[in-house]
Amino acid sequence: MDIARMIDHTLLKAEAHRTEVRKIVDEAMIHGFASVCVNGSFVKSVSKTLRARSSSVKTCSVVGFPLGAMSENVKKMEATVAAKDGSDEIDFVGNLPALVEGDVEVLREQFATIVKEARAVNPEIVVKVIIESAYLMKDVDDAEAERRIAAACQAAIEGGVDFVKTSTGFHGAGGATVEAVALMRKHAGPIKVKASGGIRNLDDAKRMIDAGADRLGCSAGVQIVQGLEGSDDY
Amino acid sequence: MDIARMIDHTLLKAEAHRTEVRKIVDEAMIHGFASVCVNGSFVKSVSKTLRARSSSVKTCSVVGFPLGAMSENVKKMEATVAAKDGSDEIDFVGNLPALVEGDVEVLREQFATIVKEARAVNPEIVVKVIIESAYLMKDVDDAEAERRIAAACQAAIEGGVDFVKTSTGFHGAGGATVEAVALMRKHAGPIKVKASGGIRNLDDAKRMIDAGADRLGCSAGVQIVQGLEGSDDY
Repeated sequence: MDIARMIDHTLLKAEAHRTEVRKIVDEAMIHGFASVCVNGSFVKSVSKTLRARSSSVKTCSVVGFPLGAMSENVKKMEATVAAKDGSDEIDFVGNLPALVEGDVEVLREQFATIVKEARAVNPEIVVKVIIESAYLMKDVDDAEAERRIAAACQAAIEGGVDFVKTSTGFHGAGGATVEAVALMRKHAGPIKVKASGGIRNLDDAKRMIDAGADRLGCSAGVQIVQGLEGSDDY
Repeated sequence: MDIARMIDHTLLKAEAHRTEVRKIVDEAMIHGFASVCVNGSFVKSVSKTLRARSSSVKTCSVVGFPLGAMSENVKKMEATVAAKDGSDEIDFVGNLPALVEGDVEVLREQFATIVKEARAVNPEIVVKVIIESAYLMKDVDDAEAERRIAAACQAAIEGGVDFVKTSTGFHGAGGATVEAVALMRKHAGPIKVKASGGIRNLDDAKRMIDAGADRLGCSAGVQIVQGLEGSDDY
């Protein structure tokens, strides 16, 4: 198992500086990570750099991040811009009240719109929906937690999304858990699962992969592949 | 001094439900707050409700929130949508690395673009720029902190912004401080200052007003006008 190829090397804090972004681009190439995941303002430069170097590392960006609470219309426009700017992958944040409600039809419509917009620009683009699983599973019984996760996964499948992703890493309810990843794997059928938020070391990474994660979003990628302890400072 | 008229009654957490939004709309009308401040997905309904009731309470929404790190192009589109959806006021988040750098020309250009886009839809719209003052002032000496705040304020003045605002309330560096508000007041010349983040009670509110705040962004507005202790749960 090559963990490096499963890592989205991530830097999403508001104050991230271009010198830090350059560093994670270099690190992603050196370690053979899946992608570099950054905020929209860095997509053009990251994409340009990776392409100029003929790297197999992908450019990943976020949409509607981290609240997912803007107008769905704005999320759609942001997906278009992200694709035009050179994103190979986009991780967009679902509308949390809608995810709690768990109406598959409503969610599918929202998800499909983002997929359609992004694919109109780049038919190959990989789309991940962030469902903030820790919040969805908080303060409810197991049955309700599973109902919500299952609805989100079903809508993602029907909406043409490629991955369901646990967390933004910014929500107070927390990041990825083994329980959430296992539930998502159970219900995600043909699509993939990305675990993110709180993955700080190789043990965390292995637990997520064992639970069913296909991709890991973390800022501690270098420490993880070196068997060291990293931070969760997105 | 009528503190109620200075309060933007704020609910910006990702999971905010429409029933909670309805409640703060009612509260804002009952107490005579300046505005209801919500995420983009609620702007249409809040604006429609307030207009249908002929209320003097304004609809305020956020743009580029809370990271300010998306493409400036996306922020521009979001400002347009917010104005079209019925916002009377928009609070947009500045690009943090650019604010740290403090190049007035670069900042002015970014700020002026948002103002221009929003005013093209609604010439009367009030625009506030959030500068994340606690982060700008963190780990630097007083002279550098003042240089950064002054640059942001100068760019806001030149860019046609109506208010400089301290904080999103979501950044780890913290919310409004008396020191930040006083510095912003010192450099904001003809434009206004909004303090936000961590304002939980009447004492907090009074300290901010004494330091020079013209507007207060908080979720504890009802507790503040009742002389009680509120929470900072945006």
